[in-house]
Amino acid sequence: MEQKGVSKAVIGRLPRYYRYLGELMEEGVERISSSDLSQKMKVTSSQIRQDLNHFGGFGQTGYGYHVATLYNEIGHLLGLDKNHSLIVIGAGNLGQALANYANFERRGFNICAMFDADPKLIGTRTIRDIPILDVARLEEYLENHEVDIAVLAIPKTGAIPVAKRLVEAHIRAIWNFSHTDLEVPEDVVVENVHLSESLMKLSYRMAEQRRK
Amino acid sequence: MEQKGVSKAVIGRLPRYYRYLGELMEEGVERISSSDLSQKMKVTSSQIRQDLNHFGGFGQTGYGYHVATLYNEIGHLLGLDKNHSLIVIGAGNLGQALANYANFERRGFNICAMFDADPKLIGTRTIRDIPILDVARLEEYLENHEVDIAVLAIPKTGAIPVAKRLVEAHIRAIWNFSHTDLEVPEDVVVENVHLSESLMKLSYRMAEQRRK
Repeated sequence: MEQKGVSKAVIGRLPRYYRYLGELMEEGVERISSSDLSQKMKVTSSQIRQDLNHFGGFGQTGYGYHVATLYNEIGHLLGLDKNHSLIVIGAGNLGQALANYANFERRGFNICAMFDADPKLIGTRTIRDIPILDVARLEEYLENHEVDIAVLAIPKTGAIPVAKRLVEAHIRAIWNFSHTDLEVPEDVVVENVHLSESLMKLSYRMAEQRRK
Repeated sequence: MEQKGVSKAVIGRLPRYYRYLGELMEEGVERISSSDLSQKMKVTSSQIRQDLNHFGGFGQTGYGYHVATLYNEIGHLLGLDKNHSLIVIGAGNLGQALANYANFERRGFNICAMFDADPKLIGTRTIRDIPILDVARLEEYLENHEVDIAVLAIPKTGAIPVAKRLVEAHIRAIWNFSHTDLEVPEDVVVENVHLSESLMKLSYRMAEQRRK
C-alpha cells in the first residue's frame, strides 16, 4: 500500500475508518460494499473510494472491501502495528485521565511513567501502577528508557520549556494538550489537542443556530 | 460583521486567531499588520486576509488590524459575548479534569453540575464546589435549570442512551468526548473530541517520518 501525497484531511479521516472497520469485525462482518460503509459512516461512497484510492485502492468492483484486510492495512498506515511507549508530563486530573484510558493500551500505546513537579504526587502510583516521577529527573529517565511519545498535560506556562527539554533529550513526537503552540524542529511531530478551541467551535455553531 | 457561507476550515481557525489576539492585548499591542500577525501565527498573510474577509474585513490597508476590535468581533462570532452554562456527564478523571479547567470559566463557560452513576461519587463536591449528582436525576435537574451545553465524558457504551435523554430534555449542544459518533436531530450541535483518533494521527505522522 503506497501513499501519493496524502492530504491532512484524508489522514484525519483514517482513524474514523479504522474505528468503523473494527466495529464491523466485532460484529463478524467479512465484506462490506462502499455504499453500505458510506451509509454507516454518513459520508458519500465516492468520498470513501477517493480516500482509499490514495493508498492504492483495495476495493474490487462488485465485491466491496474485505473488512479485516482493510482494517489491518489502515492500522499499518496509522503505525498501529508497532508498539509505542509514552510518558505523560503532568499528573494532574488531565494527565491521570489520559493514563487511565485503557483504550490507548489496547492499540499498543503504553504509558510507562508520569512526571510532575508536585512533591505530594511524586513517588505515588495512583493510576494502573504507573509511577509518578519528579520532572527534574526527566532527562535521566529518557537516557535510560526508550520513549516514543511525550504527552504534555501541563499548563501553558510550563509547556514551552518542557517541550524544549524533551526535544533536546531526543523525543521526536509530542501530544500537546497545553494551550499553546510549540516551536519544534522539523523532524519532531506535534499533535495538538486544544480543548478551549474545540469548545469555542461548539459555541460558534450555537451562535450560528441562534442567528438562523 | 456578516458571514457569507463560512467553511468549516475557516471556523476552525477562528479560535486560534482569538487566542493570539488575546495574547497581543495582554502584551499591550494596539495595532498589528497582517504580515506581523502572519509571522507570529505561522500562516500566510493572504490566508489571514482571506479568512477575515469572510466576516467583512476589518483591516485597512497600511493601518493593519486594531487588535481589541478584532478580538471582540471574533469573540462575538464565536458566541463568547454570551455566558454558557454547562453540565458534565461523567465525574471520572476526564470529567474532573474538564471541571477543573479554570480557562473555560474565564471565557464564560460555567459548569454548574456534574452527573455520575457511581454512588461513591454522588453527593460529593470534589472540584471547585461543583456538586456531583445522580445521573438518574438528570431530567429533573434539566427541568429546573437552564443548561446550554452538556459535556459527555463517559465511556462509549453509555454515551448513546445518555445523548438521547439529553436531546429529549431539550439540550441543543453536546461536547462529546465519548469514543462514538452520536446521532442527533439537525438542530442539535455536536462537537467531538476523539482522543484516540488524535493519538492515531500522531502515530501516522511518526510512521510517515520513519518511511522517509
